[in-house]
Amino acid sequence: MKKTAVIFGGNSYEHEISIISAISLSGILKQELIFIFIDNKREMFLIESKNLKASYFSSLDYKKSSKVVFENKGFLKQGFLKTTSIKCENAINLIHGKDGEDGTITSLLKWFDFKYISPSIEASAISYNKILTKIYAKEINVNILDYEAINKTNTKTKLNFPIIVKPSTLGSSIAINIANNKDELDYFIDIALEYDDKILLEPFILGIKEYNLAGYFNTNENKFHFSKIEEVKKDKMLDFDTKYLDFAREESIKEADINENLKKEMKEAFSKIYNTMFINSIIRCDFFIYENKVFLNEINSIPGSMANYLFDDFEKAVHNIFSSFKKDKKINIEYSYIENIRKAK
Amino acid sequence: MKKTAVIFGGNSYEHEISIISAISLSGILKQELIFIFIDNKREMFLIESKNLKASYFSSLDYKKSSKVVFENKGFLKQGFLKTTSIKCENAINLIHGKDGEDGTITSLLKWFDFKYISPSIEASAISYNKILTKIYAKEINVNILDYEAINKTNTKTKLNFPIIVKPSTLGSSIAINIANNKDELDYFIDIALEYDDKILLEPFILGIKEYNLAGYFNTNENKFHFSKIEEVKKDKMLDFDTKYLDFAREESIKEADINENLKKEMKEAFSKIYNTMFINSIIRCDFFIYENKVFLNEINSIPGSMANYLFDDFEKAVHNIFSSFKKDKKINIEYSYIENIRKAK
Repeated sequence: MKKTAVIFGGNSYEHEISIISAISLSGILKQELIFIFIDNKREMFLIESKNLKASYFSSLDYKKSSKVVFENKGFLKQGFLKTTSIKCENAINLIHGKDGEDGTITSLLKWFDFKYISPSIEASAISYNKILTKIYAKEINVNILDYEAINKTNTKTKLNFPIIVKPSTLGSSIAINIANNKDELDYFIDIALEYDDKILLEPFILGIKEYNLAGYFNTNENKFHFSKIEEVKKDKMLDFDTKYLDFAREESIKEADINENLKKEMKEAFSKIYNTMFINSIIRCDFFIYENKVFLNEINSIPGSMANYLFDDFEKAVHNIFSSFKKDKKINIEYSYIENIRKAK
Repeated sequence: MKKTAVIFGGNSYEHEISIISAISLSGILKQELIFIFIDNKREMFLIESKNLKASYFSSLDYKKSSKVVFENKGFLKQGFLKTTSIKCENAINLIHGKDGEDGTITSLLKWFDFKYISPSIEASAISYNKILTKIYAKEINVNILDYEAINKTNTKTKLNFPIIVKPSTLGSSIAINIANNKDELDYFIDIALEYDDKILLEPFILGIKEYNLAGYFNTNENKFHFSKIEEVKKDKMLDFDTKYLDFAREESIKEADINENLKKEMKEAFSKIYNTMFINSIIRCDFFIYENKVFLNEINSIPGSMANYLFDDFEKAVHNIFSSFKKDKKINIEYSYIENIRKAK
């Protein structure tokens, strides 16, 4: 099997989660992997497996690793005297949040002709921006909770308290808060505005149950593969630290105790969301069940640790996507229009 | 003033329009420009000004030019014996359609730290996919004509004939046809499906008037700059050849003869669409006027020749965007969460 690059880190608020994700995948995938770390200046480093531990990054020791840059189907390693080419056909985009989930890394992987596991640019835009996610869900008839989109100049809301305040484009609970009154709301909106110029407000429903379902479409078999459905344990809402530790866990997951109709409804909602737009990615959708109906909360187009712990056979999922990957086609350019213009002149 | 790279060509069905756009801009912009041509294999060439003519590309003579690749704030020119660095802080993305308008080139320009005139990745996704454009317009309360999104497995429609058939993601009239009956519809859907897996159907309204309005938001002055409004002359619908020649024109444009209220309505619709999402781009919105109301037809995030002919002072527009460009911020990473996990273990 061909070498696969795991690309992690990134100029993202979820930089550290990505490091944990990479360490987690290194213990799970048996195929030949190379690890490419990206720091917040977008400098890229080739990380040897022996250095793949959290302290290597937090101590900034990673800077001693070899620098690399993208080249066609691989990376160029820059040495003192010469540059070496590291060929590598496959890549897994494991950068959560900014750069990773907003379409940037996908564009680079497409440009440099990799086969990749990464959401398409379109799918990235839809899932990275929580307001676009809501608009999209409405259009494809997937239930969502009520919401309002606000910004700096217009912070009025008709929602009743308590209200969840979320920056429109950050993952992992950063700057997400629950406001119980107008003062708290103003304060939390100010915090969220430090991260984003568009803010999402949603009603906070105490005790609402949340479920995670991951999956992907296997184009070889022309069918969806779903993970287990997991009930999210939480005290009000998962904070950053809890979520963080959660992604690094290794024990196996218990299927959520909900009835078969709801499971079916959840998988149907997942399929509508995934559509063809999310082809080549393994995504995790977070759903609520409320009054016996399924509601979409969020789409995670690059979930923590790729949600590998939810799958019975994660290695197979990765293999399936690479083996059915269809590269962008080269468009045939005949210059017939230019020739027409020249004749017309 | 700093050097500005004009990036054109591309692996796109509108490759040839892009060449015309580049030739057109070279005659208009007085600032120092370098021309970077991208062919359908995504190979990049530095084109000398003297070679900037249509026949240089259609004859494939461009292959004799120096190859370049992206580097930080510039390009590396690959010679036989050595590579030379061409520093260049600004870039204009002039690739129409695929790669240019779908967020790919924007991602590369962001990654390699240019200041650029190019739609954000989010804005690209919204405007490149005509179905997403419709969803977005509905959400922001901009009028649109009725439409249906269909695909290979579901080609049923409730619309009355005649119906316009459009691939969801191609510009410049390619594979766009008007069906007068069921047989024509099936045939035109087949043609469109060769280009895209999602197809947009719209009612065709004979004699509907179409108008182009271009503009951008000047963040220094905190206000919109609008171009003239032009009425689109057409025989039913502009075909590829007509549009093509149209973008290369040099004569000045006559402001459309519509009343001030409609002009105001059109500019308000433009502002809602542009929002903050399209910051750093000069876009052209195509509107219909029907029953005395303004309807959005399409958003062109990289219009032919950047719609320079619609502006009184296009050079200033370009200058304004570069001078107010805010680069993506570097996120401060403190590794506090990794330290917490290590302590928790």
